[in-house]
Amino acid sequence: VQSPHTETFSADAPGPGYPVALPHHEHIAGLVERLRQGDARALARAISLVENEAAEAPALLSACYAHTGHARRIGITGAPGAGKSTLADRLAQQFRHADRTVGLLAVDPTSPFTGGALLGDRIRLREHASDPGFYCRSMATRGALGGLALATADAAMVLEAAGKDVVLVETVGVGQDEVEIARLADVTLVVLVPGMGDDVQSLKAGLMEVADLYVINKADREGADRVEQEIKAMQSLAPEHRDWIPPVVRTVATTGAGIDHLMEAMARMETWLTAGNRLAERRARHWQRRLEAMLRAELMRRARSNGLTEGNLHQHAERIAAGEEDPWRLVRDLAKSIS
Amino acid sequence: VQSPHTETFSADAPGPGYPVALPHHEHIAGLVERLRQGDARALARAISLVENEAAEAPALLSACYAHTGHARRIGITGAPGAGKSTLADRLAQQFRHADRTVGLLAVDPTSPFTGGALLGDRIRLREHASDPGFYCRSMATRGALGGLALATADAAMVLEAAGKDVVLVETVGVGQDEVEIARLADVTLVVLVPGMGDDVQSLKAGLMEVADLYVINKADREGADRVEQEIKAMQSLAPEHRDWIPPVVRTVATTGAGIDHLMEAMARMETWLTAGNRLAERRARHWQRRLEAMLRAELMRRARSNGLTEGNLHQHAERIAAGEEDPWRLVRDLAKSIS
Repeated sequence: VQSPHTETFSADAPGPGYPVALPHHEHIAGLVERLRQGDARALARAISLVENEAAEAPALLSACYAHTGHARRIGITGAPGAGKSTLADRLAQQFRHADRTVGLLAVDPTSPFTGGALLGDRIRLREHASDPGFYCRSMATRGALGGLALATADAAMVLEAAGKDVVLVETVGVGQDEVEIARLADVTLVVLVPGMGDDVQSLKAGLMEVADLYVINKADREGADRVEQEIKAMQSLAPEHRDWIPPVVRTVATTGAGIDHLMEAMARMETWLTAGNRLAERRARHWQRRLEAMLRAELMRRARSNGLTEGNLHQHAERIAAGEEDPWRLVRDLAKSIS
Repeated sequence: VQSPHTETFSADAPGPGYPVALPHHEHIAGLVERLRQGDARALARAISLVENEAAEAPALLSACYAHTGHARRIGITGAPGAGKSTLADRLAQQFRHADRTVGLLAVDPTSPFTGGALLGDRIRLREHASDPGFYCRSMATRGALGGLALATADAAMVLEAAGKDVVLVETVGVGQDEVEIARLADVTLVVLVPGMGDDVQSLKAGLMEVADLYVINKADREGADRVEQEIKAMQSLAPEHRDWIPPVVRTVATTGAGIDHLMEAMARMETWLTAGNRLAERRARHWQRRLEAMLRAELMRRARSNGLTEGNLHQHAERIAAGEEDPWRLVRDLAKSIS
């Protein structure tokens, strides 16, 4: 089986900058077919190709693209320690009870050292170990700035092509990268907790523009009222008029309390989102951001296949650090040589 | 006055994608001369050009580059609410007392809404208002992922060209962007506080590889011993052997307690850093990362001046969201058309 998409890439032999083997397009077509048939190993391999920016990744994603668009991508972000993982697990349970298949991406940009070990003692692994309708994967940070948001969006697309009805994307941090990851979802939950102290203001400000729903988790703790009041106060100050006012839902994810209310709020959001062409407009905005990031990555790939090696760069960097070479002149010359 | 650097850029008429006026190189040379003579308005204007990615920015930075290399750049990062701003103010005071001029960049990637207002009630403005040897500036988040780290490094270079002996770069968040900003400094302080709860582990893991010194601020609170023990425990687990073991210093920035010990620890770090060619090697590694980011930005600038407009991208994005256009094929075609 050879799709027209994969063929598009067949003339593109990888340059010397590519760290991986030659792309085999028969192999990619076979891989996509297997992951669409529910083969978890094929799915894992496909996400790894995407995560590692392998030479086959564009062809793979092209092939996946044709099978996407129907799933709902839900981003879960917020303050560290807010219980996002447990909440994501609860939501996954709820969707599975409603017979919807679930893919879960746990993104941890702040911990380059933990990587795959992160998920060790989480309830999802115990509960879903034998459920073929659930797939969970952690994404760790990578070198390139912004690369993680792109890789996560790509991995979500692979999960969608693999037939998952719902893709949950959970991020750990609170920086710009995490906001970007959340921004690429169809629906974004922002999770807060009572008693976070003064910095809750600055956290909320950055997340406010991406929030579709607020979850006050650990709501059995003192201070839940105050957090809700703060959210409402910020909403009343919001610069832009929005026809969807993000509701505030209280949960205790560890016990499951309030999860039913959260699911109801998400159902209301779904109704709003799918009325008119709101979802299409939102996705178009996302794709515009994503296209820019993709183009940036592709241009750098071309630079590398034109001989821009790590060693080259290091020699230039040494001369620049010694005050012997103007970096702005160099970058201009490099950009010209790629053209 | 026309430097050879500025001339390099004179043949480069801006394409249709440039939002600003034509670059005037006489103007740039004059601007650099004025900021080098201590003109604070020229300095403010130069940093704005860099921050807004104006067409003149590369020529400006080229001209600044010749006057850099001698200042020390100090990054201050860590958990939200750790008191980094007050600590930065205290360090600025100390350096000024030692007759070293200081530039301070306060970076807030998580708060797109606060921007310049952030610095309103901080001690630095009251204390340093009439001190020509001190310059303070806030940098707010921008659209492009990773752009903030680059813009901050560029602004630090402008401050250095303006004759500042020490450039302090203080970041608010804890995500990848902030680690990247801290990574580009000569010396990086990681600030923690007692009683942060379980998430201190994940915060520290991400920051550990960039830390040259740990500061336990608000050390008069309960739990300072525990934080120090945790840092020491993590250091003993560090995967790589380092010949500089980051010391741990306790401070109470609001009262100034411990700041003298911090300055002593920084002096020891300075002795270590300037022995052999450690500083040169470190800066070469930084420039290598930075060159990649600069090249990425320059290639996108070229794409925009080749007619890749927001409107164009939006039309493509709409078709992609509707399932009518393969984004990976499109990106490949766009990259080709730029070459």
